[in-house]
Amino acid sequence: MKLFEKTIGTTEIFNGHILNLRVDDVELPDGSFSKREIVSHKGAVAVLAIKDNQVLFVNQYRIAMQKVLTEIPAGLIDPGENPEETAIRECREEIGYRPLNMFKLGVFLPTPGYCSEIITLFCATEFANDPKKNPDEFLRTMKIPLRTVKALYLNGLFTDGKTAAALGYYFSLTSMGLL
Amino acid sequence: MKLFEKTIGTTEIFNGHILNLRVDDVELPDGSFSKREIVSHKGAVAVLAIKDNQVLFVNQYRIAMQKVLTEIPAGLIDPGENPEETAIRECREEIGYRPLNMFKLGVFLPTPGYCSEIITLFCATEFANDPKKNPDEFLRTMKIPLRTVKALYLNGLFTDGKTAAALGYYFSLTSMGLL
Repeated sequence: MKLFEKTIGTTEIFNGHILNLRVDDVELPDGSFSKREIVSHKGAVAVLAIKDNQVLFVNQYRIAMQKVLTEIPAGLIDPGENPEETAIRECREEIGYRPLNMFKLGVFLPTPGYCSEIITLFCATEFANDPKKNPDEFLRTMKIPLRTVKALYLNGLFTDGKTAAALGYYFSLTSMGLL
Repeated sequence: MKLFEKTIGTTEIFNGHILNLRVDDVELPDGSFSKREIVSHKGAVAVLAIKDNQVLFVNQYRIAMQKVLTEIPAGLIDPGENPEETAIRECREEIGYRPLNMFKLGVFLPTPGYCSEIITLFCATEFANDPKKNPDEFLRTMKIPLRTVKALYLNGLFTDGKTAAALGYYFSLTSMGLL
């Protein structure tokens, strides 16, 4: 039996600023029918920024969780940008630095069960001072020494998905001597 | 300036089977106003299942991404269940085994910027044969040796967020001798 679902109809529910919602009628592999609630999203990037053996984080109020979370710098890809350009812009806006070198850690699908969002994860380790204020954002930056970050990470204290995923790649790669 | 957004109004957009969508009017820290698109979700679990040095995965068609993804067993928390109970049920349904011991790797917020979903990540290493068929699911199980999984993970080939996050915790903990 082929793992595939054929879309036979779509109902648009909502077109918003950061996401759209639709409900698709699908035909399942056994020929029966079901509905799929699907959030479409324009995509984002996140950057693990390590400067002088310290990781740069941003604290931000997340109304969906009703609390302030500690996250790596991140943001939505604007029209016409590629992920690298978004990563550089978000670092300038959120932590005040322009990455001078940057490599890709991986691609992260937060919730592929119902959402098309793709977050490209980068790591940057060299920077120039080059802040660019975004008046629409309210956040506070925080620097934490890398070894403290590792202890916090291993204890599960970075609950934000993209942050935990980026740190997981980084610590797994460094422990293998691959970074 | 306190990092907080005060909700001053809510518009319900959609109440679905797996998610709800609302738009909140909020007051920002500087006294200005904005809107927030918020997906609420009932929560889920995912289980890194390691049996005889092999990791058990499920392949599943994900219509939001329009492809088959390789993921660790996972699922929504049913009413009245706690996360451990969901983890055991999902393992029985998706890989045919009941975990005999299980520990928590962490809590994973896939997209806290707009969604309230919380995924509790577990690791299980001992199992009893105890399948329980779920007729609504179409998936294929796959066993991959742990060292192959590590190589695939380090190369960014597990794009599913909860899968990458669980593997990141596992490989970081084992490389430190903590598991």
